[in-house]
Amino acid sequence: MTSPAARTALDLTADLPVSALEDFYRDLHRHPELSLDEHRTAAKLTERLRRAGYDTTDGIGGTGVAGVLRNGDGPVVLLRADMDALPVQEETGLPYASETPGLMHACGHDLHVTWLVGAAEALSAGRDTWSGTLLLVGQPAEETGLGAARMMADGLYERFPRPDVLLGQHAAPGPAGLYAHVPGLILSASTDIDIVVHGVGGHGSRPETAVDPVVTACFLVTRLQTIVSREVAAGESAVLTVGRIEAGTLPNIIPASARISLNIRTQSEHVRTRMIEAVRRIAAGECAAAGCPREPEVTVGSSFPATVNDSETDRRVSSVHAEVFGAATVLAPGPAMGSEDFPRLAAGGLPYAYWFVTTTPPDVWATAPGDDLHHKLAAVPSNHSPHFTPDLTTVAPGVRALVSGALTLLN
Amino acid sequence: MTSPAARTALDLTADLPVSALEDFYRDLHRHPELSLDEHRTAAKLTERLRRAGYDTTDGIGGTGVAGVLRNGDGPVVLLRADMDALPVQEETGLPYASETPGLMHACGHDLHVTWLVGAAEALSAGRDTWSGTLLLVGQPAEETGLGAARMMADGLYERFPRPDVLLGQHAAPGPAGLYAHVPGLILSASTDIDIVVHGVGGHGSRPETAVDPVVTACFLVTRLQTIVSREVAAGESAVLTVGRIEAGTLPNIIPASARISLNIRTQSEHVRTRMIEAVRRIAAGECAAAGCPREPEVTVGSSFPATVNDSETDRRVSSVHAEVFGAATVLAPGPAMGSEDFPRLAAGGLPYAYWFVTTTPPDVWATAPGDDLHHKLAAVPSNHSPHFTPDLTTVAPGVRALVSGALTLLN
Amino acid sequence: MTSPAARTALDLTADLPVSALEDFYRDLHRHPELSLDEHRTAAKLTERLRRAGYDTTDGIGGTGVAGVLRNGDGPVVLLRADMDALPVQEETGLPYASETPGLMHACGHDLHVTWLVGAAEALSAGRDTWSGTLLLVGQPAEETGLGAARMMADGLYERFPRPDVLLGQHAAPGPAGLYAHVPGLILSASTDIDIVVHGVGGHGSRPETAVDPVVTACFLVTRLQTIVSREVAAGESAVLTVGRIEAGTLPNIIPASARISLNIRTQSEHVRTRMIEAVRRIAAGECAAAGCPREPEVTVGSSFPATVNDSETDRRVSSVHAEVFGAATVLAPGPAMGSEDFPRLAAGGLPYAYWFVTTTPPDVWATAPGDDLHHKLAAVPSNHSPHFTPDLTTVAPGVRALVSGALTLLN
Amino acid sequence: MTSPAARTALDLTADLPVSALEDFYRDLHRHPELSLDEHRTAAKLTERLRRAGYDTTDGIGGTGVAGVLRNGDGPVVLLRADMDALPVQEETGLPYASETPGLMHACGHDLHVTWLVGAAEALSAGRDTWSGTLLLVGQPAEETGLGAARMMADGLYERFPRPDVLLGQHAAPGPAGLYAHVPGLILSASTDIDIVVHGVGGHGSRPETAVDPVVTACFLVTRLQTIVSREVAAGESAVLTVGRIEAGTLPNIIPASARISLNIRTQSEHVRTRMIEAVRRIAAGECAAAGCPREPEVTVGSSFPATVNDSETDRRVSSVHAEVFGAATVLAPGPAMGSEDFPRLAAGGLPYAYWFVTTTPPDVWATAPGDDLHHKLAAVPSNHSPHFTPDLTTVAPGVRALVSGALTLLN
Repeated sequence: MTSPAARTALDLTADLPVSALEDFYRDLHRHPELSLDEHRTAAKLTERLRRAGYDTTDGIGGTGVAGVLRNGDGPVVLLRADMDALPVQEETGLPYASETPGLMHACGHDLHVTWLVGAAEALSAGRDTWSGTLLLVGQPAEETGLGAARMMADGLYERFPRPDVLLGQHAAPGPAGLYAHVPGLILSASTDIDIVVHGVGGHGSRPETAVDPVVTACFLVTRLQTIVSREVAAGESAVLTVGRIEAGTLPNIIPASARISLNIRTQSEHVRTRMIEAVRRIAAGECAAAGCPREPEVTVGSSFPATVNDSETDRRVSSVHAEVFGAATVLAPGPAMGSEDFPRLAAGGLPYAYWFVTTTPPDVWATAPGDDLHHKLAAVPSNHSPHFTPDLTTVAPGVRALVSGALTLLN
Repeated sequence: MTSPAARTALDLTADLPVSALEDFYRDLHRHPELSLDEHRTAAKLTERLRRAGYDTTDGIGGTGVAGVLRNGDGPVVLLRADMDALPVQEETGLPYASETPGLMHACGHDLHVTWLVGAAEALSAGRDTWSGTLLLVGQPAEETGLGAARMMADGLYERFPRPDVLLGQHAAPGPAGLYAHVPGLILSASTDIDIVVHGVGGHGSRPETAVDPVVTACFLVTRLQTIVSREVAAGESAVLTVGRIEAGTLPNIIPASARISLNIRTQSEHVRTRMIEAVRRIAAGECAAAGCPREPEVTVGSSFPATVNDSETDRRVSSVHAEVFGAATVLAPGPAMGSEDFPRLAAGGLPYAYWFVTTTPPDVWATAPGDDLHHKLAAVPSNHSPHFTPDLTTVAPGVRALVSGALTLLN
Repeated sequence: MTSPAARTALDLTADLPVSALEDFYRDLHRHPELSLDEHRTAAKLTERLRRAGYDTTDGIGGTGVAGVLRNGDGPVVLLRADMDALPVQEETGLPYASETPGLMHACGHDLHVTWLVGAAEALSAGRDTWSGTLLLVGQPAEETGLGAARMMADGLYERFPRPDVLLGQHAAPGPAGLYAHVPGLILSASTDIDIVVHGVGGHGSRPETAVDPVVTACFLVTRLQTIVSREVAAGESAVLTVGRIEAGTLPNIIPASARISLNIRTQSEHVRTRMIEAVRRIAAGECAAAGCPREPEVTVGSSFPATVNDSETDRRVSSVHAEVFGAATVLAPGPAMGSEDFPRLAAGGLPYAYWFVTTTPPDVWATAPGDDLHHKLAAVPSNHSPHFTPDLTTVAPGVRALVSGALTLLN
Repeated sequence: MTSPAARTALDLTADLPVSALEDFYRDLHRHPELSLDEHRTAAKLTERLRRAGYDTTDGIGGTGVAGVLRNGDGPVVLLRADMDALPVQEETGLPYASETPGLMHACGHDLHVTWLVGAAEALSAGRDTWSGTLLLVGQPAEETGLGAARMMADGLYERFPRPDVLLGQHAAPGPAGLYAHVPGLILSASTDIDIVVHGVGGHGSRPETAVDPVVTACFLVTRLQTIVSREVAAGESAVLTVGRIEAGTLPNIIPASARISLNIRTQSEHVRTRMIEAVRRIAAGECAAAGCPREPEVTVGSSFPATVNDSETDRRVSSVHAEVFGAATVLAPGPAMGSEDFPRLAAGGLPYAYWFVTTTPPDVWATAPGDDLHHKLAAVPSNHSPHFTPDLTTVAPGVRALVSGALTLLN
């Protein structure tokens, strides 16, 4: 362990109030809030940052929070946590499970906020060990892809200093305590598409007088599988998921329309373009096959950019993590298919590093079926699962990872 | 025209208050009510029956209405109208369209109630022309198949005289002014089935860690098409309609389950049995193909019996209709695939006649594409369509059809 | 038993050479011949007719045979048997199974020829009991629908007397010894359709450079199921069977095209028209969805007319059968979905009767699973099955059925 | 240009008999031969090698050829060309198109043999410029994956010296004149799977008595698409192609079975295992859904290993290619999904380099639609296409690539 940043990070986080941070986490977990409705979460975060000495502003872009700590000359380093939860019914059975039916912190953003609070306090308490400016951001609405853009549109970098470099950290499945870095493309672009199939409604006993949009939508979903299986080269990475389908009200009424919502993940623009074209072509073809009275409505909705780490920044952060946690804990997993709107905070080409911290409880991991990483990863609850349960032993290491990453970039 | 019943029916309905009945109809059409929630409709009907001299009771089986007129010796004849509307968003553009978003009288039950009111008044006014007992029934919840059973369970024939014969009349597509009679099986049995597909939820970008219930449900719906196309003999009549599919909330979350609601129509018990078995087999097979963690839940829900007219009763009613409206207006279309819970009012084997009155407006019929009945029927709005619009010229004939049918069975 | 025809028929068939007829049948069964290639079968039939005293001609329309017996004044009655076998690999395990690999008399035409020979001999031997003219026809190529038309085009009724009435008899599954008559529509129209899907071939590892016709053809076949399940009214009888699909040579080459051959059965022209239109629409839509470089080729091929018995002729024949075999053996099963080109011999509106003789061996029937006719019929081998095995006990009754039918129409 | 190998290679190939080599190529192209039937091709190659001074043996492993040139001390370097053609109907319209209907050199093996002959002659003529041993191999049956294994089983390295290093070169789409090298995994593993679906045959008009294997096989093929689209992580590279489907003979007979042949390409063993399991699971599930009387037969057939270049060998060869052809012509495209049995010649872990030479004619490339490499690659004919046409300008460069590769490894 030779770098001052690593040594300082360990010093500053030696006496973290772990039990209090866990309580903070459990409170957030009990009270999930949907995208752009993170009022309670934002208030909790704002209060903690203010108490730790940061100049804070809330309500940025709706429910966003920022806090700044000016500490002499040096670079401006932004640390970001996202705050929103998901419309998922929690099935973990945890004593601190969501108290709001149908909502759950199933992506770990409650842990991200907790990490940010711990890092904010530690870095503020140890401000004599570094110089520069810390900008801490609690971002709303990462899940819908709107939050970062809204904070930017609301003048984040006019109200606060423009960062020189940004850091983001995300919980992920895997045996708790690994740090996954990629010195380039780490997360994929994401595009939502909505399709409305227009049939002709009628009585369920007389399908010959109707054009059945339920059957048409279902054939469409099965046909969409061929985009990945037949139209994307195997060397490219792409996913198409139909996350939602909805049609009809009663078993014996043929409805007039059906609605499908899908999401595609891509790592290159030409694949994204071809997939969108294929979705349009298949939707049109299936509706023509069905004899629909008019063409389907295909609407390309919200999207996320690809997340591409600055290789030098990522190298510096992964190096300090290797020092702090041990070289064996730092992985290079290659690009993942998830997506983030974090890059929107780096508009204009600001360099950033974004990494994952694995959080699967050791006993869950140990008893997961399979002999290798692939089988076990497929067997444990992943982000967005109603069973997603980050291990509480990752609270302190996640704080350390942020603190050491920040210190290695500050003076 | 030789039968007294025909002559009397024409006499009694010569001066129908058509304009007032149309207003009554339009009022009902503006105020559709869901099954078992027909409070306003039941109140309107009760008021009219009471004013016309019937002893009435409401709230039978929830929202059912009955009125009796005892008029000397003779048979007890029951006339029935159903009262409930459907969860369909009206798209007729009529000036008297539904004022309740998402609800519509898309099956003509408002017209049935209007016909019953007109017949009740005419038969009461002309009570010196016949003897016997009239029992008029406003039945709730025909669409869900629960209404007739609930009225029976609530003691309909203990509170009122048990009928010797029952009559029911229903609006149907076809050039306004035809009367469709079948001297036996006229409507099919109906069975609802619910299927819940259990997959494994997860993040939309990592389908390999999930078991996608949306894709599985869609393949299931496409596979269910083979029941009618491959497993039912062509000489049998059967329909399987998936009226509802629902899964997921957001485009990029793979949900944990999907739900399908379907309805089957059959005309023989062995076909019904085979179809239900096939639904179970296909659901199990598709979920096995998908690798679902557990078997699908297949629940056989509400059902309707087949509607089988008493041939002699039907012959008598169709004969008087031929006299009243002209022989060319009486059709024998054969069994239809629709279903009714009307037969439940005939529990114990009471004889009944049930027929259709066609109600498509003449101009709509004339301009419908096609040269023959089949093409035109397929082109005009049918029951349950958001465009279903009975022609107002059928108000008076529908009253006449009920009055003449009743008179031919009364003394 | 009061009719002379019944009594005479029993007399004339009292001493049938059953054992020799069975040998004749087994010989035909061993030597199946494809449509228009029935040279051996035709020669055997011709020889027997000639020996029995008929003036015979062979090679009519290719391989057709006709024999005439002029026997005084009276009507000309045509009896017809079809002669061709099918490209089916026999799996009966019979000692007299087909000796030609891949060919089998799987539709009972060998039995039809045997019945015709038996009837020809009995009626010739007993020619003093009747007067009129017998025209016996051995028709080729019933399976492909070409045989009757070819005999007609080759001047059958110019070379031989035009019949006043025609009779045809066919083997069918069911407990051996029943006679199924329908006084009107008994068999459906049949239409073959060929579809060629044009994709873009390529290496199996690079589907993104190809347009996969295998996947496209398979989606097309699944989509075609909706024609019967969604576009044909349940009250109509229709079938669509894809009997053949063929694409590709090796597992790892994406072929350039795929071929589908299907057959539709209908009982009304408007359903046939709608189904053909739907096949075209679905083929075009699916190929559009796939991004095929050109439209599919949809070719409407050979077709059969509907078989509609003359009700009076059928009534006379079924009456004599009831006398000869007992009233309980005569069924009225209603229209079937099979097809025949027999009506083409009745061009110009000649009256005819066509009926079925059930031929399932009693032990096979008795042990077939199920308690009723429907289940058992579904369980025993039907026509075109590689296990189809007519019971030899039906040889004599089939001769009797033809002889009694003919006698009831002759003087 | 500093390396002696590059300079010598250019010297030795300065006066290649290009026109004669083109004639040799056109002759091979006219006479394609199926795997293990390459008698004529093998004879032509043997003759040329012998004339060039090589000790040759033919008939190795059936139709394999080897020729050795011992030229003093130094390493043994093997150069390999595969010789077999494909069951593809050529559609190039070339004057020298295949003269054998249904067979075509659609994968460029004719060009590989031509390159090998050119290199053999040039290296023999210039044998004073190098020392070591050259082993030239004409391998049969690459397409079926059997050829290399058969030559090895037939004692290739007992009859000839065991090589120290192996080189293989393959034609590929892309603008003629590029050299694609990968210093590790370059080609995928390949596994063939055959599936037989057992239904119950019957007459096409009575599907209710049958279990339709055509419909079942088609649903199976559509369901198989989900293996790549839902069960393989996007970061893995995998392909599943159904190259062949076959069922039935006539449109109106439901056959008793259907056969599907598919091929999967994978780059890791755990993905291969999961895909094979998924094929089995889906086949079983779909046949259960169909009600098949017995389980499908799923047979895992021939397979190819992954092709993984020795990084040092590949680096040396790609370096000399950069010198000979210019640095801009050497690409690093990453792993492809194609497969080879070439690695079987390197049994025991011998190092090898395998690379691609792009051969699309310049005018075809220039006019292919699209602005970038991806679109153009998708638009030009690829290997196994009936339009695959290597440009003749690549004859000499391909010889140079082999000669320079060999020289850089010889003394």
